[in-house]
Parts: sequence; C-alpha cells; structure tokens
Amino acid sequence: MADQYAQSGEDNRPTEIPAIRWEEPPEGPVLVLLDQTRLPAEEVELVCTDAPALVEAIRSLAVRGAPLLGIAGAYGVALAAARGFDVDDAALALAGARPTAVNLAVGVRRAQAAYRAELAKSGDAGEAAVAALAAARALHREDAEASARMAERGLALLDELLPGGGHRILTHCNTGSLVSGGEGTAFAVALAAQRAGRLRRLWVDETRPLLQGARLTAYEAARTGMAYTLLTDNAAGSLFAAGEVDAVLIGADRIAADGSVANKVGSYPLAVLARYHHVPFIVVAPLTTVDPDTPDGASIEVEQRAGFEVTEVAVPQAPVTGAGGGVPVAPLGTQAYNPAFDVTPPELVTAIVTEEGTVSPVTAEALAELCGRARQVTIG
Amino acid sequence: MADQYAQSGEDNRPTEIPAIRWEEPPEGPVLVLLDQTRLPAEEVELVCTDAPALVEAIRSLAVRGAPLLGIAGAYGVALAAARGFDVDDAALALAGARPTAVNLAVGVRRAQAAYRAELAKSGDAGEAAVAALAAARALHREDAEASARMAERGLALLDELLPGGGHRILTHCNTGSLVSGGEGTAFAVALAAQRAGRLRRLWVDETRPLLQGARLTAYEAARTGMAYTLLTDNAAGSLFAAGEVDAVLIGADRIAADGSVANKVGSYPLAVLARYHHVPFIVVAPLTTVDPDTPDGASIEVEQRAGFEVTEVAVPQAPVTGAGGGVPVAPLGTQAYNPAFDVTPPELVTAIVTEEGTVSPVTAEALAELCGRARQVTIG
Repeated sequence: MADQYAQSGEDNRPTEIPAIRWEEPPEGPVLVLLDQTRLPAEEVELVCTDAPALVEAIRSLAVRGAPLLGIAGAYGVALAAARGFDVDDAALALAGARPTAVNLAVGVRRAQAAYRAELAKSGDAGEAAVAALAAARALHREDAEASARMAERGLALLDELLPGGGHRILTHCNTGSLVSGGEGTAFAVALAAQRAGRLRRLWVDETRPLLQGARLTAYEAARTGMAYTLLTDNAAGSLFAAGEVDAVLIGADRIAADGSVANKVGSYPLAVLARYHHVPFIVVAPLTTVDPDTPDGASIEVEQRAGFEVTEVAVPQAPVTGAGGGVPVAPLGTQAYNPAFDVTPPELVTAIVTEEGTVSPVTAEALAELCGRARQVTIG
Repeated sequence: MADQYAQSGEDNRPTEIPAIRWEEPPEGPVLVLLDQTRLPAEEVELVCTDAPALVEAIRSLAVRGAPLLGIAGAYGVALAAARGFDVDDAALALAGARPTAVNLAVGVRRAQAAYRAELAKSGDAGEAAVAALAAARALHREDAEASARMAERGLALLDELLPGGGHRILTHCNTGSLVSGGEGTAFAVALAAQRAGRLRRLWVDETRPLLQGARLTAYEAARTGMAYTLLTDNAAGSLFAAGEVDAVLIGADRIAADGSVANKVGSYPLAVLARYHHVPFIVVAPLTTVDPDTPDGASIEVEQRAGFEVTEVAVPQAPVTGAGGGVPVAPLGTQAYNPAFDVTPPELVTAIVTEEGTVSPVTAEALAELCGRARQVTIG
C-alpha cells in the first residue's frame, strides 16, 4: 500500500518506541505506529499518511487495544483534516474499522466534533484541522493521566483485598503501554505493584489465537524487569487449583451499562474459574470504555474474526503456505469458530477500576453514578 | 538415530494408516508407528527396531494417548525380547518414558509378565518372546473391543442425558483411533452418535500447546465426515455461554481411586465451565486407566514439559530458529509454566464411562465396585 510504509528499528533490543506518535515531516503530517503484529521479533514502525492506511492498520491489528484505538481514531481524523481529505468520510471509515471497542468511535467523534465546531466558527478548514489535532492530543494526554490514576486506584484495591502483599497476578491479553497513551490499564496496576515492591509474579496467559500475551505482554514485562511466567490459556486452571493466583487483572474493550464486560476471548472462562476458586476478578479500564448506549451484555456486538487465525499459525519467518498467510495447523477445509471477545456478566466481576473511581460490587446503578459524577467533574 | 527411521506415505490424502503395527520383515521384527508429530501435514511412518527408539518416540509424542501408550509399551517389550535385548532393562526404560499415563506401565508389565512366565516354564527365550508378543497382541485386540463397548455405553448415556438428540459435543485433545487399538475413547462415542444420526456438531478445542485438537482430532473428524468446528481453547467459554454445548466428552490419562481424572491440560477449566453452565462433563476411558494405587488427585504426578512448547510454535515447514526447534513467539529468556495435564476432582465429573460400565455419580466406592466386578469377569 502506497499510503502505509514500514521503517525498521535500528536493533532488536527492547526500546522505548511509543505505540503511536504524530509527526510533521516536510512531506506532510503522518501518524507513526509501532507495528504490533511484528513484535516481539522486530520493532518496526508503520507510517500512515491517510485514514485508509490507518483503517488497514487497525484491521490488521498493527495498532490495537481499546484505549489506543481511541487515540488512533482521533489522530486519524486529524490526519485526514490536515491532509485535506473529507473528514466525515474518514471518520465513518475509522469508526467502523472494528466493531467491539467503543473507544475507537468515541475518539473519532471527539476529533470530528472539534473539527466541525471550529469549521462552523471560523469557516477555515486549516484552523479546523488544527482543532482536530488538538483534540487528538488532548485525548492522548488524558489517557496517559487516566493510566496513572487507574494504576494508583488498582493498587489500592489490591492492597485492600490482599493485605499480605506479594501479589501473584494473572493477566490475559495485553494491556500495557502498547494499548495506551500511558502505561495501560491492568498492566499498569501490576507495574505499580512491582514499583511498590508488592508484586511476586505476573502470570501471563499466552492469549490465543493471536498470542498477544506471549508476544506483547511478555515483551512489556521483560522490559520492566518484572518476575513473569508465560502459560498457555489452558494452564490457568492448574494455577488456580494450586492456589497460585491471588487476583485476575484484565482490561476491557467495552463495558455495558449493566456492568457486563467485553474483553479478549478467554476472559470469561477466567472469570468463571476465579469465582469457583474465590479469587478476585478485577477489570481495569478508562471510563471511555463504558458505553451507556449498550444496555447489557447481550447487546454487545462481538467481532467474529477470520477462521485462519485458528487454522493457521502466523509465523513471520515461515514460508507462506496457507490461504490466510500463515502455516496451516489443521486439515485443509477445517472451519473455525473465532470470536475475538467474550462477555463476562457483572456478577462475576469483583470490581471495575476506572480513573475516576472503583465500582464494587458491579451494578448498573453504581456504574451510572460513577459516570454521572465524572461528567460533572468534566463539566465543572 | 539408527534405530528409528521414517518412511513416507505415498500421498497426503487421509488414509487408514494404523497408529501402530507390528511387522516382521526379513531384517527382523519392527514396530511401525504413524508419526503423530507430523500430522496433519504429512502421513509419515516411524519404524522402531529397538526399545530405546520407541522410548524416544514416546517422549517426542510421535506415539501418544493413554490407551495407545499401553499397547506401544507392550509391543516394545515384545520387540526387545524378539531382538534378544535385555527385557527387564527395556521394560524399565519404557515404563518410565512418560510419567502420567498409567496405561503405559500396565502394558509394559503385562508383556514383561508373559515373557517371564514363559521363560520360567520353558526356559526358552524364543518361546518367551513369542509369549510377550502374544500378550501385546491380546492387549491391542482387547483395547479395540473396549473402544467399541465404551462407544456403545457412552452413546446410551448421552441419549439418556440428552433425550432430544442432535448432540453438540465439545471435546479436548485427541481421543480417536490415533490413541487406541480401536476407535478410541471420547471420540469413539462421538463417532457412534454420528453413525446413529444423533451428532449435530463436534466442537474441537485446538488444545494448546501441542494443538492435538487442531492437528489430530480435526484430522480424524474430517476422515469420518463429521460436522466439526475448530476453536481456540479460549473460545469454549463463549460456546457454553451461548448454550451451544450439550455435553463435554474427554478421555483420561489416569483416574485415581477417588475418581479424580488427570487429562490433557485445559480439561479442568472445561469441567468448571460445564458445572457453571449445568452441562454434563463425561470422561470416557478404559478400566486400565483407573489406578487403584493412586488414592486421590493430589497423588497424581503431573508431567511438566519443556517451556519451549509454549515460548515457541513448532512449525515443521519453518526454518528452525529457537532453542526448542520451533519459531519463537515470546521474547528471548521468557520462562513458561507448562504442565501437560491437569486434574479434575470427581465432584465435577458427571460420569466415567468404561468398557465394563458407567459410574455416575463418581465416587471411590462406585469406582472400586466397578473395578472389582471387572476383575471377577476376567478371572471367571
């Protein structure tokens, strides 16, 4: 694709390449992404010069994770505006690039609203583009601040639930700085525990089919010097049975008004295991993840992804032999069921930690109250 | 290795290559295995000319599955005897090749006992070798018969529990003709349901880390023309939540005297999910899997396998880059927790189906009674 190109990192050591950044080279503004599909083998940056390139990057999961998708969506609108493309077209395509994470559409709408408001006021498309970029940057900054506040609140909750310290935390998928403007959601809490000397071990679910745990969370844990151990998603049950898990910490892609949590497939089985073993199951997510327009879990649209993510294993170094570009591990013609997310009902969630406060027990009323309070703070 | 060599199948279409067979070419007797590590991409036979080669094949999982391991162990003793090697040395090495499946040691002991008894009687090592082979062949034949009886009893149980028919069965790992002298254990029940026109769908867990579900169960399901769908182990929870699973059918590697079931890692989480969703969780295994010398689940030794099975993905067609011979998917230096099995307590098991009868509810008393009854039948 002409509008999306790669630039290689200089070496393979873990560095501090940000997951997303806006740049303004002489050729015009671009959005630079750390290509997460190539991690941990390679740190490659993907440069998007227009919204369709970003839509493709979102679909291919080069950029992913609910909070980061919101930031990317906002920058995508700003990019279209700065490059003089149709902003409403770009916003529509970006908001629909993936269906489950509400943050994506929220981020897109925010930059689009800033653009429209400025255009209506000044009639100047250039000024409107500047406003869209300012909105994206504000969202980016706010997300980093929200990360820090979630980490603080999450650690306080852990310390309250597990007064002994020496937390052994199980996590699923990837929720660190790769999905966030800051240090992430659930991972940021583990990192805060680590810095406070109260993390004994981070258990990292590999998170099939795309192995975000093995590829990305292990990469982030290694960078921060945490004691971490990788496991297949299947082995989590053995850890619970052996009493080796003190708490489960996960992120969220969408939280319905009743407190139902859509997150990476495999989260719901962990919630059931946690309940069976009387282990706290804690969701850490910014308030933008709460979608008051989705009344309950059954109303959450769960993205069904292509079967080849299951029937083939994506191995960048291998010769491409399967229709999906990976190496086939199942017989030819095998059909696969591949939901990207699952939904955990509120009764299985011990607490939802947000930047504005913690809800526990999780009820529609408590969640609405928190959202209302946060809106007042914002307005005030 | 000089004592273990491969011979390629003629083409890649599913054929009826047996999982194990004894052959007597002019160069001397050999044990021929279908190399299960190469499936489904290639049907390659592995020829073992002595016990160490078979031990290696067992360790590398070229031959696997509890009932088949018993048969392989017995043939391995017969092979050592027929080739004039030390039978007790061979028996010791074979019985210890993998720790969890009790069938392996049972099969080895049976052929060894036949060898010793004949040697004591006739003093003729040649006659003793013939006796060992006869014992192995008897075990092979009995296992095939046991498969047929388990299938019949299992289907009767399904029909009783799910009178509506149209069974949607979830299974884990691989339990068909690749692990058995016959059509297997849990898979044989699904096959019986299929033949009776009462199987709506077989849901196949891929079964990380070694993907026996994707590679082997999907291969067996495809060969038999079943309606089957592959899923990541993570996605099973979504199926339960959607009411798409009528029963779980799995095999067992060892059943303790109290009814605790050791089976492929990931079985226990399915048992917890099944209980949470009021879905029957049924274990299908021959009586040789029951180990009266293991009092309870905590006494079952669970094999811990190498971390590279998790940190690397074994892709035969890919260039070898990791220390474990696969393609790395996690950062270098990542430690992994990799138990091969987990243990499901009897209270989560709806029924244990054996060739001699079905135990439900699963209690130590009921299991002991069944084993005692089976012994009487054998003695009588």
